[in-house]
Amino acid sequence: MRYLLCFCISFVPVLAMSAEPATPAHPIAIVIHGGAGTITRKDMTPGMEAQYRAGLKQALETGYAVLKNGGRSLDAVQAAIRVMEDNPLFNAGKGAVFAHNGKNEMDAAIMDGATLKAGAVAGVEHIKNPIDLARLVMDKTPHVLLVGEGAEEFASSQGMTLMPASYFYTQHRWDELQKALKEEAVGPGASAEQYPGTTARGFGTVGAVALDRRGELAAGTSTGGLTNKYYGRVGDSPIIGAGTYANDATCGASGTGTGEYFMRLDLTKSISDLMLYKGMPLAQAADQMVMHELVRLGGMDTGGAIAMDKNGDIAMPFNTEGMYRAYIDTAGHEVVKIYRDE
Amino acid sequence: MRYLLCFCISFVPVLAMSAEPATPAHPIAIVIHGGAGTITRKDMTPGMEAQYRAGLKQALETGYAVLKNGGRSLDAVQAAIRVMEDNPLFNAGKGAVFAHNGKNEMDAAIMDGATLKAGAVAGVEHIKNPIDLARLVMDKTPHVLLVGEGAEEFASSQGMTLMPASYFYTQHRWDELQKALKEEAVGPGASAEQYPGTTARGFGTVGAVALDRRGELAAGTSTGGLTNKYYGRVGDSPIIGAGTYANDATCGASGTGTGEYFMRLDLTKSISDLMLYKGMPLAQAADQMVMHELVRLGGMDTGGAIAMDKNGDIAMPFNTEGMYRAYIDTAGHEVVKIYRDE
Repeated sequence: MRYLLCFCISFVPVLAMSAEPATPAHPIAIVIHGGAGTITRKDMTPGMEAQYRAGLKQALETGYAVLKNGGRSLDAVQAAIRVMEDNPLFNAGKGAVFAHNGKNEMDAAIMDGATLKAGAVAGVEHIKNPIDLARLVMDKTPHVLLVGEGAEEFASSQGMTLMPASYFYTQHRWDELQKALKEEAVGPGASAEQYPGTTARGFGTVGAVALDRRGELAAGTSTGGLTNKYYGRVGDSPIIGAGTYANDATCGASGTGTGEYFMRLDLTKSISDLMLYKGMPLAQAADQMVMHELVRLGGMDTGGAIAMDKNGDIAMPFNTEGMYRAYIDTAGHEVVKIYRDE
Repeated sequence: MRYLLCFCISFVPVLAMSAEPATPAHPIAIVIHGGAGTITRKDMTPGMEAQYRAGLKQALETGYAVLKNGGRSLDAVQAAIRVMEDNPLFNAGKGAVFAHNGKNEMDAAIMDGATLKAGAVAGVEHIKNPIDLARLVMDKTPHVLLVGEGAEEFASSQGMTLMPASYFYTQHRWDELQKALKEEAVGPGASAEQYPGTTARGFGTVGAVALDRRGELAAGTSTGGLTNKYYGRVGDSPIIGAGTYANDATCGASGTGTGEYFMRLDLTKSISDLMLYKGMPLAQAADQMVMHELVRLGGMDTGGAIAMDKNGDIAMPFNTEGMYRAYIDTAGHEVVKIYRDE
């Protein structure tokens, strides 16, 4: 009896602790994109369309599984992007487009909305998953952005295997470069003095924004850049506030489009600032930047963005014909879309 | 008499045109910085102090002369920065600090407030005046940011002479690197796994903001980065919205400090957005970002910024012991300062 009493008493505080009502878990949600551009039904075969939808779905559900298991939004974003980097359909990681010099130069960034910590890499040529390297820059260095060989040297120091250029080769991306080079050589105004890369075209970039059970936002972006782009050109994807931004006070966002306009507008930071300083709701702020400011600066067909606020509200505006996009909202509702009219 | 009459009549319209009141020329002003940091009277000899003041004055007056002659703010910014890049006292161009690998890696950016056009370069090693190359990226390419060898290849294609590494060598910067490497090797927590560059220190960066007779703002920044920084690390200077920003609707601004905090805050764009979206006056917006947000994120001694609005009002907040800074305001009043208490 005495022993039993002791047993009971000593466990009371423990029982009391576990009986204490836990903070209700925050609703979770994830949104991803696989690039915006001239994506129309007439240019797409049913087979290709099915592949793109399956690729988006796989990335989306991989990221969502992390959230569902109580994982961090940063990890969910990274997991979703990794799937798209490994899928040759998307212009990131394997399947990255070729620059003017025939090389694959990749950029990526990730940002933590809870701490405003960020990591990014640009101009890497041998990194299987640039988003993983961006995460390492954030977690393991005092820096935000590492570029080129320095970034790859850092990858090696972290035990990352550098991949041969052949890993990134895909026939359709190589053909795209050859076509662009040919047009550049015979196009209007073609000359030896012409700035190489003026026919740089097509944008594909992948990105993700997630909200986890702790109510924390994260955003990430990864890209192979522009076909036939100038050697060393860095776009908006790895630039914090341009193509990638996250702040728990406002939103997470990832852009895809003609990076230079996103950089000149600091597009994703502007969405956040419209919310923070002007009190705009997410959808209106994202719309203002993508459908008005971006169009005003660069015209139509300049791109799109995905964004999510701390309530899990989602915006996916784009001024192009289509944008590969998908989300699972706070109600668990899953949506995958490609064209404007769906 | 008849001839005289004809003469008079025929010139009437011309006289009328020139008599028409011309749009009054907009007031002009320029503000520059040569870096913020632990700059105290006790660490400075009178001779060194005089050299710094003379260097700032020369850069300031060179930029101002452009404005006075009716030149563009972009040209004034570029001219002022070029003078500081050529002066070995400042950490930009000649006099740039050494990275961990013993190389000089330089970054620069310039932005046009009238058009939001921008040009930037990062990680260049052989460019005498990185600000000139940033301007060429803006004027001659569809891109905003070129990095590393790609940027240098572009420089060559534009007829720019690449300088040997020896041009950038200065004994005092080399000694700073040796001291940092030594401290890293014996400092607390020193180990083979330690991230190289954790003792990266000291910031010097040069920048300028100008307002021209057309009422247009421009901003530019140039830097040698951090002593002992990791190979390939890019800071805030070449990042539009982080270390450099200009928008005629709000302000031009250039930062100097621990670049990573400026990048995570998009510090110069935030000053602009506080003005644009919250209606804050320049001084209050600059103060909010440098003295509050920057301190909140990174603590004291993290840096400073210069900023100017379209009226020529000037702000120069810094949370460090000192900041090399100078301006000529719209009244033509010239000021050169170094320490906090002046």
